[in-house]
Amino acid sequence: MKPLAQRLFERLERAGVDCTFGIPGDFALPLYAAQNKYGMRTVVCTHEPNAVFAAIAYARIKGLGIVLTTYGVGGLNMINPMAMAYAEFTPVLVISGAPEIGGRTGEIQVHHLVKDYESQRRVFEEVTVATAVLDNSDTAAAEIERIIQTVVRQKRPGYLEIPRDMTNIPIADPGEAASPPTEPEFNEETLAEALGEIRRLISEAKKPVLYVGVGVRRQNLVEQVTKLAEAWGMAVVSSVMGKGTFPETHSNFVGLFMGEMGDAAAQKAVQESDCVLSVGVINSDVNTGFETGKIPHRKLIVVAEQETLVFHHRYENLPMGAFITALAEAAPAQQKPFVPAVPTPEPAATPKTQGPLRIEGVIRVLKGLDPSQYSFLADVGDAWFIGLELQTDFFIASGYYGTMGFAVPGGLGAGIAAPERLPLVIVGDGAFQMTGAEIAVMKGLGLKAIVLVLNNATYKMLEALDGPRDYYNIQNWDYVGFARALGCEGERVTTETGLQDAIAKGKKAKTSYLIEAIVDKEDYPPILKRFRDFFAAKKAQA
Amino acid sequence: MKPLAQRLFERLERAGVDCTFGIPGDFALPLYAAQNKYGMRTVVCTHEPNAVFAAIAYARIKGLGIVLTTYGVGGLNMINPMAMAYAEFTPVLVISGAPEIGGRTGEIQVHHLVKDYESQRRVFEEVTVATAVLDNSDTAAAEIERIIQTVVRQKRPGYLEIPRDMTNIPIADPGEAASPPTEPEFNEETLAEALGEIRRLISEAKKPVLYVGVGVRRQNLVEQVTKLAEAWGMAVVSSVMGKGTFPETHSNFVGLFMGEMGDAAAQKAVQESDCVLSVGVINSDVNTGFETGKIPHRKLIVVAEQETLVFHHRYENLPMGAFITALAEAAPAQQKPFVPAVPTPEPAATPKTQGPLRIEGVIRVLKGLDPSQYSFLADVGDAWFIGLELQTDFFIASGYYGTMGFAVPGGLGAGIAAPERLPLVIVGDGAFQMTGAEIAVMKGLGLKAIVLVLNNATYKMLEALDGPRDYYNIQNWDYVGFARALGCEGERVTTETGLQDAIAKGKKAKTSYLIEAIVDKEDYPPILKRFRDFFAAKKAQA
Repeated sequence: MKPLAQRLFERLERAGVDCTFGIPGDFALPLYAAQNKYGMRTVVCTHEPNAVFAAIAYARIKGLGIVLTTYGVGGLNMINPMAMAYAEFTPVLVISGAPEIGGRTGEIQVHHLVKDYESQRRVFEEVTVATAVLDNSDTAAAEIERIIQTVVRQKRPGYLEIPRDMTNIPIADPGEAASPPTEPEFNEETLAEALGEIRRLISEAKKPVLYVGVGVRRQNLVEQVTKLAEAWGMAVVSSVMGKGTFPETHSNFVGLFMGEMGDAAAQKAVQESDCVLSVGVINSDVNTGFETGKIPHRKLIVVAEQETLVFHHRYENLPMGAFITALAEAAPAQQKPFVPAVPTPEPAATPKTQGPLRIEGVIRVLKGLDPSQYSFLADVGDAWFIGLELQTDFFIASGYYGTMGFAVPGGLGAGIAAPERLPLVIVGDGAFQMTGAEIAVMKGLGLKAIVLVLNNATYKMLEALDGPRDYYNIQNWDYVGFARALGCEGERVTTETGLQDAIAKGKKAKTSYLIEAIVDKEDYPPILKRFRDFFAAKKAQA
Repeated sequence: MKPLAQRLFERLERAGVDCTFGIPGDFALPLYAAQNKYGMRTVVCTHEPNAVFAAIAYARIKGLGIVLTTYGVGGLNMINPMAMAYAEFTPVLVISGAPEIGGRTGEIQVHHLVKDYESQRRVFEEVTVATAVLDNSDTAAAEIERIIQTVVRQKRPGYLEIPRDMTNIPIADPGEAASPPTEPEFNEETLAEALGEIRRLISEAKKPVLYVGVGVRRQNLVEQVTKLAEAWGMAVVSSVMGKGTFPETHSNFVGLFMGEMGDAAAQKAVQESDCVLSVGVINSDVNTGFETGKIPHRKLIVVAEQETLVFHHRYENLPMGAFITALAEAAPAQQKPFVPAVPTPEPAATPKTQGPLRIEGVIRVLKGLDPSQYSFLADVGDAWFIGLELQTDFFIASGYYGTMGFAVPGGLGAGIAAPERLPLVIVGDGAFQMTGAEIAVMKGLGLKAIVLVLNNATYKMLEALDGPRDYYNIQNWDYVGFARALGCEGERVTTETGLQDAIAKGKKAKTSYLIEAIVDKEDYPPILKRFRDFFAAKKAQA
């Protein structure tokens, strides 16, 4: 028998976790005390949404992220970022303290409580794959196992609620339940049949294309899909959410596929292909460039988490991991050569010394950096569209759910999870105003990031969709003054060489370095420009 | 027939609403455009939680507050403050855009979506009294009526979801449904019987006490309870959540009742009373001073929203409004004189010119202000306990649910709803770091507040409960530098006269004025000190 919290933190350590993100609050105080006692590192953020964002970035790098919070005021302030984790397949576990089981008499209402004691759990059920309330010492160990295993296996978030008087209750060894997760069972005949058909289709295709989504990274299948691409000489395109999954410097890599919005070469490769093998791609409106990149069923094979679709028929209960591994092993020994398409012209590599700073200049400077030294994090809008232009295998963003405010707290999580890289955060002014304060937490931990704030004083993305409106203007801040007030450094830049120099200074700075890049309101990243034109044309038609 | 959005905004205007709080996002763009077109004022906040906090303060003053948001990334970022509105009886309505009904084919996933199209509504059901999705033009008008009337009548939040393609669809006049809400029906005999019994109990009591909670303010019964107190010569105590409901300068007012934690005179009055009439009080752990203020059933009458309890028997379906109004009318014509108890000694009124600044000094300075000129807003922890010491009838806080970060955005809402008063925000450093950026929004609107940041570099409340821990220390900011970076002004004070002067400067400033008050880590507000001692004694016993 060991105290519940001890078993929990020991189990999290075995899962490869070395810290939790959160804010202490009264119902979680014994959990925080236990965490401290059992040697798990405590990272206290400024605001609950930020804690989850940090844990998401951490989880994408380490395979599991943990958030520790109090009841109500803490937990219910995490629903939006948890929805991001759910929508974008990220294994984050929220552990919430809760009122004592022993005090739930109904006579007196407990603070931080909403409708009833089940409300918070019901809310979390909408944004997680597994929830549990540890209100029983006999089942607690098995419940902890169930939640952690489900989260890690399904790569989606979970929720564990611990009433305050259960925190240190002795619980038995979970025994069998604690054995490492076994792969879900599947029918070997289904696998063999699917393998046979798909192997034949790819071999016979003249221009097979491999379309890589984020699921490939989450399921740790990068090596296998790389082998597949090489063995069959397949061109590789990436979905926007899958950006950075397939090595972008690989000779088979063509570009980012997002229909008419993405790389022209990628669109051409998919359109001309006679067989597209899509692996781990989320079939969303943004991913398909609002249907301008819709791929006809007659040439499409879709390998999803638990099933595979070929044209119009479906192999059910076929786990992606097992299938892709088998397909890679069944690849021909003799590699087919890959004939690259005409490469997209690169923007000139020499930065301009004269202002004003253009978005294309920002992209040029960022492309000039050595990508092996940075974790790139992009917020939504402009920042994301700029990030999509970079050639990097280390790119973290909210590419499907699209929530603002992810990137700065994400930089905190990435800085802890991948300390060998410097987080480089690209963020618009609107998103920065939501969560930018997290640079102060980095400072407190002796961490740093380069934070590039694109200041165009607008919700640019909305203007692109809807045209100019007074209420899309964002109140201007002195962002560098903000950084200094939080104990960090920074400077404002208005030219391309200025930006280049500022990044160099940021690399040497002792704290986070905020670069406020003044960009013109009328200036658009290339992909966003295509979005704008697409929606303008649609509007004109309507 | 009129467009749905037109009917909606016209109806909100009739309900006395003159602005909405929120952040525009793609699924809500037609709603924002319609709002602009039909002349409702648009207030864009920096972050979704702040928008709801602002609407809560606005609603507490005006009777209804509106939040406008996009789907998922917007709506799901509002659950915690909506839980506050639910727990603390505040009529706030969230209006959320949503994906087009016409586009819900299931073939392609829409961005910002979580589990399914019902997820967001299900989440909101946990923190509201009424929800509706306007997916049918035949029922939309009646649904709008139902939601608004339920919210206004129950003084609790609601949720209205408008798919993007429904925004401007023509809908009929709601007709009958739009008639003003009627009071809920009740049995006249029940009323007469309860009235008879309670009138007798109060008349016979030697030391009757009226215990006033927040429900009295929400139900607009201040005048009636004042009449009751005067007619029967009752001493009046206030619950912490009800602070500012009963006029604190009234001669019958004794103080804040919170058991051993509250005013000693109030505790004495309740303990010595032979009949306590509690009206609109939330029976929570904090309100009762963690049961140190538990009132025995044998002398307690509880008038709640829909029922009245006398000792151990209950009159059901008896609306508070109808009952209190009748009881006030049935009061004796000849007023009983009120004999005041010994007053609590007031702290000396002369501010100290020498440092260091003590919490008692902060309270002294704030008590020296003319309360008629300010809306006082307090965040949780230190700030709240300081606010509870003030003599004011205009006090807005999260006194039951207790969420951090309410007060600065609350200052925005109060500034709009009560422009004749200057919002004076009392906030700890931890809470300020969550939502303090909202001062920039005030500036953008030509509004201002005095923001008093109590900087003790600790989550003081947690330390009071749990003792010192490394992880309760808060990263220090240059708060004045922060305010300046956001276009506002401010100064740091370390003495009592310095604070007094700073408030005078803040009154004259053109923008919000942030006063960073350096207070000692070891210094406690009186009530928090009692909390600390109570929990320390409890811990020592265990």
